Amino acid sequence: MKRFVDLADFSRDELLALLELARRLERQPEPRVLAGKILGLLFFNPSLRTLASFQAAMARLGGSSFVINPGHGSWALETRRGAVMVGAAAEHVREAIPVLASYCDSLGIRVFAEGRDLGADLAETTFNSMAELTDKPLINLESALNHPCQALADWKTMDDLAVPRGGRFVLSWAWHPRALPLAVPAAALHMAALRGMEVIVLRPEGFALPAAVMERAQRAALGAGGSVRETAAREEALEGADILYVKEWGATACYGDAAGDARLRSPLTGWCVRNDWFARTAPDCRVMHCLPVRRNTAIADEVLDGARSAVQREAANRLSVQTAVLHQLLK
Amino acid sequence: MKRFVDLADFSRDELLALLELARRLERQPEPRVLAGKILGLLFFNPSLRTLASFQAAMARLGGSSFVINPGHGSWALETRRGAVMVGAAAEHVREAIPVLASYCDSLGIRVFAEGRDLGADLAETTFNSMAELTDKPLINLESALNHPCQALADWKTMDDLAVPRGGRFVLSWAWHPRALPLAVPAAALHMAALRGMEVIVLRPEGFALPAAVMERAQRAALGAGGSVRETAAREEALEGADILYVKEWGATACYGDAAGDARLRSPLTGWCVRNDWFARTAPDCRVMHCLPVRRNTAIADEVLDGARSAVQREAANRLSVQTAVLHQLLK
Amino acid sequence: MKRFVDLADFSRDELLALLELARRLERQPEPRVLAGKILGLLFFNPSLRTLASFQAAMARLGGSSFVINPGHGSWALETRRGAVMVGAAAEHVREAIPVLASYCDSLGIRVFAEGRDLGADLAETTFNSMAELTDKPLINLESALNHPCQALADWKTMDDLAVPRGGRFVLSWAWHPRALPLAVPAAALHMAALRGMEVIVLRPEGFALPAAVMERAQRAALGAGGSVRETAAREEALEGADILYVKEWGATACYGDAAGDARLRSPLTGWCVRNDWFARTAPDCRVMHCLPVRRNTAIADEVLDGARSAVQREAANRLSVQTAVLHQLLK
Repeated sequence: MKRFVDLADFSRDELLALLELARRLERQPEPRVLAGKILGLLFFNPSLRTLASFQAAMARLGGSSFVINPGHGSWALETRRGAVMVGAAAEHVREAIPVLASYCDSLGIRVFAEGRDLGADLAETTFNSMAELTDKPLINLESALNHPCQALADWKTMDDLAVPRGGRFVLSWAWHPRALPLAVPAAALHMAALRGMEVIVLRPEGFALPAAVMERAQRAALGAGGSVRETAAREEALEGADILYVKEWGATACYGDAAGDARLRSPLTGWCVRNDWFARTAPDCRVMHCLPVRRNTAIADEVLDGARSAVQREAANRLSVQTAVLHQLLK
Repeated sequence: MKRFVDLADFSRDELLALLELARRLERQPEPRVLAGKILGLLFFNPSLRTLASFQAAMARLGGSSFVINPGHGSWALETRRGAVMVGAAAEHVREAIPVLASYCDSLGIRVFAEGRDLGADLAETTFNSMAELTDKPLINLESALNHPCQALADWKTMDDLAVPRGGRFVLSWAWHPRALPLAVPAAALHMAALRGMEVIVLRPEGFALPAAVMERAQRAALGAGGSVRETAAREEALEGADILYVKEWGATACYGDAAGDARLRSPLTGWCVRNDWFARTAPDCRVMHCLPVRRNTAIADEVLDGARSAVQREAANRLSVQTAVLHQLLK
Repeated sequence: MKRFVDLADFSRDELLALLELARRLERQPEPRVLAGKILGLLFFNPSLRTLASFQAAMARLGGSSFVINPGHGSWALETRRGAVMVGAAAEHVREAIPVLASYCDSLGIRVFAEGRDLGADLAETTFNSMAELTDKPLINLESALNHPCQALADWKTMDDLAVPRGGRFVLSWAWHPRALPLAVPAAALHMAALRGMEVIVLRPEGFALPAAVMERAQRAALGAGGSVRETAAREEALEGADILYVKEWGATACYGDAAGDARLRSPLTGWCVRNDWFARTAPDCRVMHCLPVRRNTAIADEVLDGARSAVQREAANRLSVQTAVLHQLLK
């Protein structure tokens, strides 16, 4: 493995082998296997799980890591090609990425969507402009439209919980004070499709996932024996659901238009997941969320503190699958 | 040992054993004893000694650590139960604490007093709301009313300096531009009482330590053969003192009232410790302060740069005693 | 070696031996030689290369490090002797430096020029006020007028590129939106002189390097068989150049006067290095810059992306030479 940037770069069998490796390393840790190896972590955006779990994963394997936050203790970085740099950015990623890569054995980059131009974000313009600057093993710590570490942890979480491969996976939009990126819903959708599940995207009007995202998931489902569809009808979607995967995201009908987004979202505060959402799901339907989650805004306390919640296991699995990814990239 | 949260959780003999372990590890380091172990450090407030010395202590024992600063590279965290999270905080500690705990073998948390409601701060409402969320070995890196790592380092410092168990320990208020928390004075008072000293709290009117803090220290003194009293009379208090332990704190007579505090404190700039404070102390009376200290505001240069100052030894002992605490928690 | 603060503290032979050690450690890493050793890194100013490469260098040698950023997660620090501390700084370096030094085996400090008083900056008043507070092995991570790690990496870069000892080294000023410190031009000038090169400082009127800086370099050149002179005539300076070392710095004719500096610099946007600067240089003339560099402001894309650019190698050599420095200080 040279890069871990997108689950779509791997066959289903390769991903299953990676999950198996994660389980093996849980049972049989290899505390010195990456002795002397260094992971560089470049965060353009805040993080809790990714920041802590990657450092922990390297330590669990005997390696080390360093963290760079542009604009916070480190120089603000320019990403646009050809920029005449008279603004706040003191350095361009065309210098910074190869330099950081020269100090480590593997580089992780987190850079969220700019949220202005859907086409640019779908094309992963910003992440790719950095990815092309190094040949070192590269890890996507969340890009505009992807979050493969989260998706793999989610896959493992469903395996751990014995959720059937063909089970019903409902990816539901939830309310948030402002527009969030599409990375997690796009990655979760694709992962569930790849896993072979019956996937339903439940979202209000105006919040449909981009056609390119849906089509990619449909292709994945086709190969894995599953299906992907979308709806705004909550009751019908939740009928018999095995997993309710909750996520907040911005209005795609007016991408990059904060006022339009706010207009569409303001009447939707009822999209906060409460116990009554589970009236017609499978009895043991579990709730997933990548975190961070706003309590009583996206998901109510009664759900997060209840037995259905799998959010802690998802987060814990971040460490587990990333340990496997680092093992594959750096061993 | 499962937690290091409050010296009161331990018997005097257990604390003496911990101090003995600290001395043993100074003489006979165990550089691989925590190989593979990870300490998570969660800082809601600034730090220099705690931040550096815990990372150093883990490294000295062969382990690793990671640092999370909510709101600075990591998500701002909500601490109130039942909050409807529409504000700045993207995540609740009810998620964040168990998640971070799942990435490490021991978790340290620093969260200062809110400084609004004395009852809530005395009850350690905020720290305890986090402490109850994990079963992992937990370390108090300074809470509303406690700082056990500092207190243990201070105890060791007095042992190092051969300050007699029954010596006179004067905890004196000092001037500061604004109200600071009660954690260090409360912890130092309790520690000196537990050590069996003759403890005098010297403070201006309006700055008496809370009754609950004084009573707790008096109970500790009773068991250890010492005593605790308070006064506003500086000359009398300093008479024959072996230790002058200096600390700034807020007016308890108007806790949470910044204007009232400022009114009480403004005439007190004379409470800056100078050489003439030692006219009637024991000849070799030493000055202690937990740091950070504002020079020529709380303590004058002539004192900090003089032979009486033990502040460097106190700070160095942070590393020493924390190494012992980590050894006990994680070995 | 007790300190690595200024190349001038070492003989030419000692520096050559250090460069040889850097090359040896590239070929034959010593991944456990600093096991158990800790490097403390204190950054008063932003950093990318220094921050990442020192952590990486310690890890490559089996050691650990911690990072303190005053004012960002750690207390703001006062540096002035005798200050009455009623402002933003909660702690004085007279406490902080010895405390941090007590937690580590070697301390690195980065503190840029204040840029107000040239005499104070030339005297390294701020850095020296901290350096005198510890006997631990000390590393200058960039001070007011020096950057020895960068200078040593630059020396190695020219060795790697087989630039002849007696080659022509042109240190050229370049445009930047505001006045930057003199540390790198002063250090690069001195290094090239020490290496025995024919050194020319090319700068507009008003931007001459301070006489003390020029004289020091001239003395170094004298001992090494090289020369140092300055000019504002670009074509003549670049004639036959082997190295064009580009750097932005503030107007010395009005040091500390932002308005005066802006007036002098505003007509100079033509000092952006483009391909046509190399019309009369040696055919294989290389471009060096310490980074960060503003693209199309100080150096054009066409140069940075072209074959002449040695900036990546310079940055990579930071890790290499610092590994040697740490090996010498801490082995």
